[in-house]
Amino acid sequence: MQRFFNTIGVIGKLNDPRVASTLTTVCTYLREQNYQVFVEQGSAQFVCDSSVKIGSAETLGAECDVVIVLGGDGTFLAAVRAVVANNIPLIGVNLGRLGFLVDISPDTLTQTLTQILSGNYTQEQRYLLRAKILRDKHVIHEETAVNEVAIHRWITPSMIEIVTKIDGVFLNSQRSDGLIIATPTGSTAYSLSAGGPILYPSLNALVLVPLNPHTLSNRPIVIHDSAEIEISFCQREQINALVTCDHIEIPDVRISDKILINKEPLPITLLHPAGHDFFDILRSKLNWG
Amino acid sequence: MQRFFNTIGVIGKLNDPRVASTLTTVCTYLREQNYQVFVEQGSAQFVCDSSVKIGSAETLGAECDVVIVLGGDGTFLAAVRAVVANNIPLIGVNLGRLGFLVDISPDTLTQTLTQILSGNYTQEQRYLLRAKILRDKHVIHEETAVNEVAIHRWITPSMIEIVTKIDGVFLNSQRSDGLIIATPTGSTAYSLSAGGPILYPSLNALVLVPLNPHTLSNRPIVIHDSAEIEISFCQREQINALVTCDHIEIPDVRISDKILINKEPLPITLLHPAGHDFFDILRSKLNWG
Amino acid sequence: MQRFFNTIGVIGKLNDPRVASTLTTVCTYLREQNYQVFVEQGSAQFVCDSSVKIGSAETLGAECDVVIVLGGDGTFLAAVRAVVANNIPLIGVNLGRLGFLVDISPDTLTQTLTQILSGNYTQEQRYLLRAKILRDKHVIHEETAVNEVAIHRWITPSMIEIVTKIDGVFLNSQRSDGLIIATPTGSTAYSLSAGGPILYPSLNALVLVPLNPHTLSNRPIVIHDSAEIEISFCQREQINALVTCDHIEIPDVRISDKILINKEPLPITLLHPAGHDFFDILRSKLNWG
Amino acid sequence: MQRFFNTIGVIGKLNDPRVASTLTTVCTYLREQNYQVFVEQGSAQFVCDSSVKIGSAETLGAECDVVIVLGGDGTFLAAVRAVVANNIPLIGVNLGRLGFLVDISPDTLTQTLTQILSGNYTQEQRYLLRAKILRDKHVIHEETAVNEVAIHRWITPSMIEIVTKIDGVFLNSQRSDGLIIATPTGSTAYSLSAGGPILYPSLNALVLVPLNPHTLSNRPIVIHDSAEIEISFCQREQINALVTCDHIEIPDVRISDKILINKEPLPITLLHPAGHDFFDILRSKLNWG
Repeated sequence: MQRFFNTIGVIGKLNDPRVASTLTTVCTYLREQNYQVFVEQGSAQFVCDSSVKIGSAETLGAECDVVIVLGGDGTFLAAVRAVVANNIPLIGVNLGRLGFLVDISPDTLTQTLTQILSGNYTQEQRYLLRAKILRDKHVIHEETAVNEVAIHRWITPSMIEIVTKIDGVFLNSQRSDGLIIATPTGSTAYSLSAGGPILYPSLNALVLVPLNPHTLSNRPIVIHDSAEIEISFCQREQINALVTCDHIEIPDVRISDKILINKEPLPITLLHPAGHDFFDILRSKLNWG
Repeated sequence: MQRFFNTIGVIGKLNDPRVASTLTTVCTYLREQNYQVFVEQGSAQFVCDSSVKIGSAETLGAECDVVIVLGGDGTFLAAVRAVVANNIPLIGVNLGRLGFLVDISPDTLTQTLTQILSGNYTQEQRYLLRAKILRDKHVIHEETAVNEVAIHRWITPSMIEIVTKIDGVFLNSQRSDGLIIATPTGSTAYSLSAGGPILYPSLNALVLVPLNPHTLSNRPIVIHDSAEIEISFCQREQINALVTCDHIEIPDVRISDKILINKEPLPITLLHPAGHDFFDILRSKLNWG
Repeated sequence: MQRFFNTIGVIGKLNDPRVASTLTTVCTYLREQNYQVFVEQGSAQFVCDSSVKIGSAETLGAECDVVIVLGGDGTFLAAVRAVVANNIPLIGVNLGRLGFLVDISPDTLTQTLTQILSGNYTQEQRYLLRAKILRDKHVIHEETAVNEVAIHRWITPSMIEIVTKIDGVFLNSQRSDGLIIATPTGSTAYSLSAGGPILYPSLNALVLVPLNPHTLSNRPIVIHDSAEIEISFCQREQINALVTCDHIEIPDVRISDKILINKEPLPITLLHPAGHDFFDILRSKLNWG
Repeated sequence: MQRFFNTIGVIGKLNDPRVASTLTTVCTYLREQNYQVFVEQGSAQFVCDSSVKIGSAETLGAECDVVIVLGGDGTFLAAVRAVVANNIPLIGVNLGRLGFLVDISPDTLTQTLTQILSGNYTQEQRYLLRAKILRDKHVIHEETAVNEVAIHRWITPSMIEIVTKIDGVFLNSQRSDGLIIATPTGSTAYSLSAGGPILYPSLNALVLVPLNPHTLSNRPIVIHDSAEIEISFCQREQINALVTCDHIEIPDVRISDKILINKEPLPITLLHPAGHDFFDILRSKLNWG
């Protein structure tokens, strides 16, 4: 019988004792099915089976055909970051509370894994962002974001003035607490809290959401995801800004730096059980009806 | 010398005396340049030149190579409706106050027309919506919308419950005052008042914006414009709903009817002077900075 | 032993079979305690005990010392309307789902009633609104609202222009779908759906919430509840407006009419079990945490 | 002839050359009218008249009967802070652009001053807030706010969890970027950018506005201004928070500190020309109509 996957990685949420039982279930099941299993070292303490290998997230990226993530959306974001360079599909399992990215319940885990690993899955691609910090025309830092790049005022009690260009064309100069640039994946995360719309996951679009803008008509704007966004600052005083990618901080951004944001050339691939329904997750997560 | 256009239609805002002078300027200029000119009959009273022909909007659609609209965005929407079947490009001239669709100022009118008619233009395509009312599986009414299809509660003082499916998949059932389905063109009109985001004009997307939803997490959702949206109602009582396309009312929609909304197969074409900048209009219309 | 109440009215939700068992529990309990009991005639079918009297809501208003409402917030609003002239306190019992006004659970009903009827209650006053329709300086209609007075565009597919004065001073003229004037009680109802803030129940304030205003900076405004609000319309065309008080329609309002909105001189009184906590209800109803 | 005021202070915006001409106009006028004039030392460079005294803001507070502020709303806030202890009325003059607090135009300055100083004024009182930082039950810092007290996440890229009690009663625990507690004066400033309502200036109320809350139903809440608000944090990790009063930072607030916010016992007094109209300023500042 043909196999879709041979080596399977497992990444668990760090410092969460709830990982233990789900990890045991997953590893036992996968070994019974004769898959080679790599567990990310942060969860090594929960692995009893000596036939299960332990490795860094990078090792998993290099060795595995698919990675199963156990945790919340935050764990999933970190896992994506670790394996994105290897272009490996991911499967998300939550630890009791449905997430947008970790859509598989631990209650039906082995059935769902049987279904997916036998090829009965829905494959979904999500595009990521890449933020580059430019200083004197040199890229001094780069970072990937699954959900959003966020620019914040930082160590200043006042609003900042953010200048945005889209594909080289001036959009606006806005006084605000900051600006979020979110992917469709990120549109249901921080961007939603800041008043952004929900973007259907496969839409080739980004949304720019101002944070508490001084001008009330500065509303969220949805643009093509092929656009290049250039952010600069318009301040007289020497204040600082903070740039984060999925809440990971890019250190030491200066008010004279520029921030370039583009789509990553390759998307990530998520595997869902066949019949996966984004709207169903949306209704559940947002308490609709 | 090659000509891009031979016969040019002109549609003026109805019942607006400000049309007179701009119409005279346009007709004089076009006749001097030896274009054949058709003026829509609603503005016939302002035409002195006997070489200018008068006709219905439908005649303009059939006879002209391009149509110049003089008025506000509302006049432009009506003009689109009249000529859409003929797939003729449109040029929008405002009567003093910039519009999203009527972006040419009367102050620089002849220069701008010279520029556009000599082929020095930016061509832009905008997709439209088509709403069909289904009763007992028959389409009993169809209507085109440039900006939005809106569903409203009607002759009932209470909220209605609207059931939405996207490509046959259940999205949600929401209690609200109604629902707007807006194109990118419409995203800066009524949809914006209802809390929707701005969509870049060429984005292949639609936005669904709930009107005062009972559930606070019922937020605007941006989807592909290739999607088919099906709206039905979930009411015990025999109330009515109102469906409008660009504020044109579709009469007699019953609570047992279904509403199907799709993209029109063909877009309309707008001609702007070369160098046209949507963001510039956005900044101006929304009083940014 | 001193009694705080002698005659107790009971009003049940109309056309709801769930009323039967709760009504029986209430009536049995009250008769055992030798209270005289009046049940509103709409629920008469559920009353088996011949010692329980049946009467109209107005009779209950005239004869009872306190009225117990069984149903949802909508039933409570109707009950207030019926007894407001008699200034009788009300007790709200829900039929399974907590309401802002019907805060007593049927599960602990007899204990809670014992507590309240023995005087161990928290008394709360809520102010109401009174809307008057003025035509040619004559009041042609008056209506009371517990939650809100709402002005809507009506049988017109376009926005209306609403002119508001506060204590005779011009506030603004806004193009919108309408305007809500809500009490603190109503601030958690329709007004919240339209983007209004939550007002603490005992705050002497009203909130004006525009419905989808054309001007994005037309935001909710909180004013003193002693203010007189005057609404008129600024339309060229002969369109209609709809005025509702707690979703009760005031018929036949014309575009040339004025609407005066004032606080009712007397508040209503709600009785809650001692220890009643508005924030607790808020957290529960709005799914906080 | 009776005089309402004898000694008049003048505080100009710092580092703004536009102050020069308005300051000269004011000083010349006041000296002609034989008022004693104190100019705040930060604008001393613009004073040519040796009969005008120069002093610190505190000296002005101690010596003057009224203080004229030349600048924007930010200058006015700083001036209030300097003289609040002395309970002196303030007059606000803008440098060209109307402010909510600096409502007098430089174009009609001497006429307006003549009017106000002759007693023909409208007196308005605005209440302020006082924030106290509690560590181990000791107040380690106190600060006054005219507009708002704001709590922000600080040097952490993630949301913080803020626990709010009102008069000792638990309101909620919310994950967000922060929380604004604004006065009516502040309701048209930062609070408005964050989605708060406008509060009429004399309303005895405060508004709590969450900053980008994770839970979408965490909406602004308007409460009595007599309430005591207690803020604490609910974090596992040792992160920091930032507390600002009118954008003035309170240094070194720890996650284990509590923040108590109360109304200041005494209001400040603003003097406006008779006929002052808050709604007129609102329409102008918010670009209504």
